[in-house]
Amino acid sequence: MAEKIWFDVTLLTMQDGDEPYGMIKDAAIVVEGDYVAWLGPKDEIPNHYDYEMIFCDGAFVTPGLIDPHTHLIYGGNRIDEFERRLNGVSYEQIAKEGGGILSTVNATRAATEGELIESAKKRLEHFCAEGVTTIEIKSGYGLDTDNELKMLSAAGKLNISRKIDVVPTFLGAHALPPEFSDDREGYIDLIINDMLPKVKQYNLASTIDGFCETIGFTHVEMERIFAAAKEMGFSIKLHAEQLSDQDGAALAAKYGALSADHLEYLSEDGVKAMKEAGTVAVLLPGAFYSLSETKLPPIDLLRKHNVPIALGSDSNPGSSPMLSLKLMINMAATLFKLTPEEALAGVTRNAAKALGLKDRGVLEVGKQADLVVWDIDHPAELAYHAGGVQVQTVVKSGEIVS
Amino acid sequence: MAEKIWFDVTLLTMQDGDEPYGMIKDAAIVVEGDYVAWLGPKDEIPNHYDYEMIFCDGAFVTPGLIDPHTHLIYGGNRIDEFERRLNGVSYEQIAKEGGGILSTVNATRAATEGELIESAKKRLEHFCAEGVTTIEIKSGYGLDTDNELKMLSAAGKLNISRKIDVVPTFLGAHALPPEFSDDREGYIDLIINDMLPKVKQYNLASTIDGFCETIGFTHVEMERIFAAAKEMGFSIKLHAEQLSDQDGAALAAKYGALSADHLEYLSEDGVKAMKEAGTVAVLLPGAFYSLSETKLPPIDLLRKHNVPIALGSDSNPGSSPMLSLKLMINMAATLFKLTPEEALAGVTRNAAKALGLKDRGVLEVGKQADLVVWDIDHPAELAYHAGGVQVQTVVKSGEIVS
Repeated sequence: MAEKIWFDVTLLTMQDGDEPYGMIKDAAIVVEGDYVAWLGPKDEIPNHYDYEMIFCDGAFVTPGLIDPHTHLIYGGNRIDEFERRLNGVSYEQIAKEGGGILSTVNATRAATEGELIESAKKRLEHFCAEGVTTIEIKSGYGLDTDNELKMLSAAGKLNISRKIDVVPTFLGAHALPPEFSDDREGYIDLIINDMLPKVKQYNLASTIDGFCETIGFTHVEMERIFAAAKEMGFSIKLHAEQLSDQDGAALAAKYGALSADHLEYLSEDGVKAMKEAGTVAVLLPGAFYSLSETKLPPIDLLRKHNVPIALGSDSNPGSSPMLSLKLMINMAATLFKLTPEEALAGVTRNAAKALGLKDRGVLEVGKQADLVVWDIDHPAELAYHAGGVQVQTVVKSGEIVS
Repeated sequence: MAEKIWFDVTLLTMQDGDEPYGMIKDAAIVVEGDYVAWLGPKDEIPNHYDYEMIFCDGAFVTPGLIDPHTHLIYGGNRIDEFERRLNGVSYEQIAKEGGGILSTVNATRAATEGELIESAKKRLEHFCAEGVTTIEIKSGYGLDTDNELKMLSAAGKLNISRKIDVVPTFLGAHALPPEFSDDREGYIDLIINDMLPKVKQYNLASTIDGFCETIGFTHVEMERIFAAAKEMGFSIKLHAEQLSDQDGAALAAKYGALSADHLEYLSEDGVKAMKEAGTVAVLLPGAFYSLSETKLPPIDLLRKHNVPIALGSDSNPGSSPMLSLKLMINMAATLFKLTPEEALAGVTRNAAKALGLKDRGVLEVGKQADLVVWDIDHPAELAYHAGGVQVQTVVKSGEIVS
């Protein structure tokens, strides 16, 4: 049993309230087993907690960071393509040669589950090192039943690591696979009639996602999938309004979605629908940055209607080759003008909400003891600096993991 | 004596030539003392090098990274100001309350040399961890003789660390200090008649720099300083054409400058003058990013006229709170569309040139043995990923330092 008192800390509980960052100064936090047993002013620790004391000299402590949107598992990489594009080769030429997302689909299909785990683990370590203790990973590069299941199974096995919890999401509706290029309906049938039941049967994911876009799936197609998924008890997420307004966020909200993600082209009606349904807005500044986008997500409308904002790395081999969630805090402040507190809530409290996780994301008695002790002088420093792993200690489920 | 053979490596020598990245596959590199004694195909190592072998399994090895433009030494920080701006407080209000660069000047003046060293060391560690083995640090927050000398002296003492070489630059002409707000001429006299001679006398820097801008010093003012500095044997650098075209790069070139830095508003005439003088273009994507600039530096003109391009972090508390040079490789590719090879040359070969250092920046016999062994699969991966310290081993002057 990990029983410890983290003593003389400045807690950023990230509780939503009057105190910025939910801050408690001169505090202590007591961990029993996997959970937070007590927290409060350090002079008021109840006597019966005679546990090992770890003296922290006032250091800031936040909940473990949560990345609610990644595509961290994939075969191959697109480094060569990235380099060729910067050397002047056109997208068209690269696509003609089998580049783009299809090259990732081919490499993912060709990889064994073990290979997928190995390559993802290497990327995952970078996130662990900077205090990420929960991460979502989507399928969506298999695009046939076996390979989608293989990806989800790999995600489940990454879960074994004691350092981090992996939350898998089924993203069969990521792109149309080449073998269905003349039969969109047929692929959607495959998702509904074969993939979804098996994901359910093997308990590989509890949430499904899709890419609703001119270059992805239409509103009508996504609705067919959502209706079937809802029927089977899946939770819902959607890549919505990234490159155009498809009224996707409102569709997702209609099905009670946990989150709608990207959202650069989101309308006020979409914002209202999300508010109504309790759907979290997951913003992905890494993709915005990597794609040199200029259309900003409607931050002011999200604020006006009190829609919770979360942030994800969108780590993927094409449009967001990010190896850092902490950098997203800086990018959200720099590119989207989120306040440092909003940005930090985006990778803690609201990221948990975007994943439907009620047991983490804030520091509170009874929640999972996922903590980061930071080497910083000010809470806003996490947004201020770009680069630099400023972590002192990471605690996952009560155990020190780095 | 550090005598080692780094065996079975893929050398990215960064020599300018036909081979991208100056790559040598299936290679070895022999280190004797501080220097590279031999490099080439691993099967051709001369017999007499019977040194300790370090087997690297084909890993990529580059020269140690070089950051040619930072303001890493300063008192205080501007985190609070950063947060207040994002909470809607105007620049004007912050300036009225003594914020902005003046707050850094006040905090730097108030700090002891030891305090400046301590706070800079903490930031410096982040650069060391990602393979930076040489870093330039400017003065310019003292703005009176004693405090400018204190900053340069602090830079010299950071130099003691065996991990990294610090190259100090005198930047008295960074901003007009408040006590001279009605006497610009007087401050320039102080620089020329008091600061420069003392910097020379105590051998605190061999290069001087300035900020030529509407909000800095005029072309005419900078020329007075350059003429005096040249006379005393200083090398020249200049913050030029960041926010407007002041014809600063051409001025710097006229005085044989090592580099002109920023350069968003550089004209083709400026580019030609730099080419003529052998002046390196130091681009600072971190400042461009942090200030949400949209005017790109004239990359195509720099390419057309063969002006060497270097990259710096511009690490400073206001306009570029970067703790990573590696991130600048990604930003140069993403924001400025440099090729990965150009970007890597920008933090190795051309960064050395921007500092007038002939003994480093490429892997070559006789150069300083500053090496980074990377945990990457492709040279372009250093530009592809944002975030993640992908370093296996850092070697500084022949010694393993991390």
